[in-house]
Amino acid sequence: MTTPVDGRPPLLATIGERGLIQRIRDRFPAPAGALQIGIGDDAAVTAGVRGEFDVLTTDALVEGVHFDLRFSSFADVGYKALAVNVSDIAAMGATPRLALLSLILPDRLTIADVDSLLDGFARMADEAGVVLAGGNITRTPGPLTVDVTAVGHVRHRRVLTRGGGKIGDQLYVTGAVGAAAAGLGMLRASAQAPEDANAAALVERHRRPVPRLRVGALLGRTRSATACMDLSDGLADAVSQLAQASGTGAVIDAEALPVPAAARRWFESQGHDPVRAALSGGDDYELLFSVSPRAGGRLRTVIRQARGVPVTRIGELTASPAILVKRDAATEPMPAGFTHF
Amino acid sequence: MTTPVDGRPPLLATIGERGLIQRIRDRFPAPAGALQIGIGDDAAVTAGVRGEFDVLTTDALVEGVHFDLRFSSFADVGYKALAVNVSDIAAMGATPRLALLSLILPDRLTIADVDSLLDGFARMADEAGVVLAGGNITRTPGPLTVDVTAVGHVRHRRVLTRGGGKIGDQLYVTGAVGAAAAGLGMLRASAQAPEDANAAALVERHRRPVPRLRVGALLGRTRSATACMDLSDGLADAVSQLAQASGTGAVIDAEALPVPAAARRWFESQGHDPVRAALSGGDDYELLFSVSPRAGGRLRTVIRQARGVPVTRIGELTASPAILVKRDAATEPMPAGFTHF
Repeated sequence: MTTPVDGRPPLLATIGERGLIQRIRDRFPAPAGALQIGIGDDAAVTAGVRGEFDVLTTDALVEGVHFDLRFSSFADVGYKALAVNVSDIAAMGATPRLALLSLILPDRLTIADVDSLLDGFARMADEAGVVLAGGNITRTPGPLTVDVTAVGHVRHRRVLTRGGGKIGDQLYVTGAVGAAAAGLGMLRASAQAPEDANAAALVERHRRPVPRLRVGALLGRTRSATACMDLSDGLADAVSQLAQASGTGAVIDAEALPVPAAARRWFESQGHDPVRAALSGGDDYELLFSVSPRAGGRLRTVIRQARGVPVTRIGELTASPAILVKRDAATEPMPAGFTHF
Repeated sequence: MTTPVDGRPPLLATIGERGLIQRIRDRFPAPAGALQIGIGDDAAVTAGVRGEFDVLTTDALVEGVHFDLRFSSFADVGYKALAVNVSDIAAMGATPRLALLSLILPDRLTIADVDSLLDGFARMADEAGVVLAGGNITRTPGPLTVDVTAVGHVRHRRVLTRGGGKIGDQLYVTGAVGAAAAGLGMLRASAQAPEDANAAALVERHRRPVPRLRVGALLGRTRSATACMDLSDGLADAVSQLAQASGTGAVIDAEALPVPAAARRWFESQGHDPVRAALSGGDDYELLFSVSPRAGGRLRTVIRQARGVPVTRIGELTASPAILVKRDAATEPMPAGFTHF
């Protein structure tokens, strides 16, 4: 049924909705005991984890808004659609467990396109230890849209909200800031990944962000962070939101920001201030978190167990409600973050 | 900020994403104790119900595929987006508890449009006892898409799958069949609801389907059904899927089908066979379920407690794998159901 006709790759209509569901069931067999009822019934059924809370989040990637098929493969899109969701789970100090995949598909897609998307999703699911529990498929006259719901679990009283920060807490960020924005800029300028390995790594951060699952779970488990959120909409946005939710201000040290050298060079080559570009750029799925000055020992334990993920101190929460960037001897207001509308 | 400028109603961009999230938080205050963490953090946090399984489902409504804004208001769309999801929860014998709302919004939408959509969603949430736990907002260059995830709970060993039917079990359906399809046909023919009350009721079934929450929960709790699913893709599709999952065939009695008289008249006026049209038409969110001949007493208890929802016997599961419709003295194959691709 899926043989190309006239050399054209077969469209989804060839196998229909039921065929596609069967393909997904075959592609995502649930491990024994993971689900009471999995893909293919009206709904999925799971047993909660005793003594733990459920953590639920949903996030959609829309073609033309969050990705461009000239720059990202279908596999990249599938990978990222799950990555951005499990990143939100990690930002709560929780561990991802299940996902639901809602595919909103234009008619022009081929079976091979959707298979690639599922391959990318499966790769991230393996990395995150996530079981696909169910989902939905529909067609759209519009852009490809991949909407994922992720479910995780966290022990009672180990939840990391955005609002737990205290004045004097130190602010830390995982990994690199501004990498994904520089990578996307490079793709837009040349439509293909650069050959230089450091630059290519930035492009990869846009295409396949690495959710900080281990660090998030460790921060929750060890109670070393007072507040945490991910950088989906950029560091500037995250610092503002965490401080606002915590009822504090914040000051960020521009010199301390872990902006990769290749990203700095790219921003400069485009006439942008690298600090402001890195602060404003979205799509880095790093974690921002605050740590009490008394929790330094616990934080060192987290860093030791983080398997090489860099953790950088970038500033602190302040009594003054302003959100500031300290640079050379002066301070300036935080630039605006990425906005969706 | 939301005053019309030049008499034009303000667009979403006027309040931005944060403004819209704040609006949703204000519109959907979570009752005390319902959530550990609600709208506005990276993810929602809930405590599971002790001794119960979690039931999870997701379903999207796409403009131009599932609804047409000439025929449905924004409030209808919000109502239906949640209704179709809690219907899936009910079809598992479970009770809905929480929802996540993923809004994928075209730029042309006004604040008032989204407020209306939220009003409709809130109406269904009230009717279903569902708390909005979180969600996501993004823009799209394409059609309005409302993707909902619903979470319910069901006691251990009370889950109703599609696959539990046995040969000789009787098939029942709630409510009316073919109503939504007739209603949509009427709207397409005249673009406005008919004045005749019986015909208007069919249109209302398309716009605001009534999920059979009470019957679904009762069927699970009393263990009176062996298998159950909802009719989202039509009765023909549901009978085929339930029988297939149960490893049986099925025969449906055409004379028994609860097709409303106004729907029959409409299908006939369009030159369609009313039985085939009612069997094939989608969007009736009724429940199809199978009942063991020994469970008649328990079923009568359910019907007594169903608060007037009609329950009609329409056929039975058979040893022969065929899916048939009995009509006058003859049998014919089941027509194909609604297909998404």
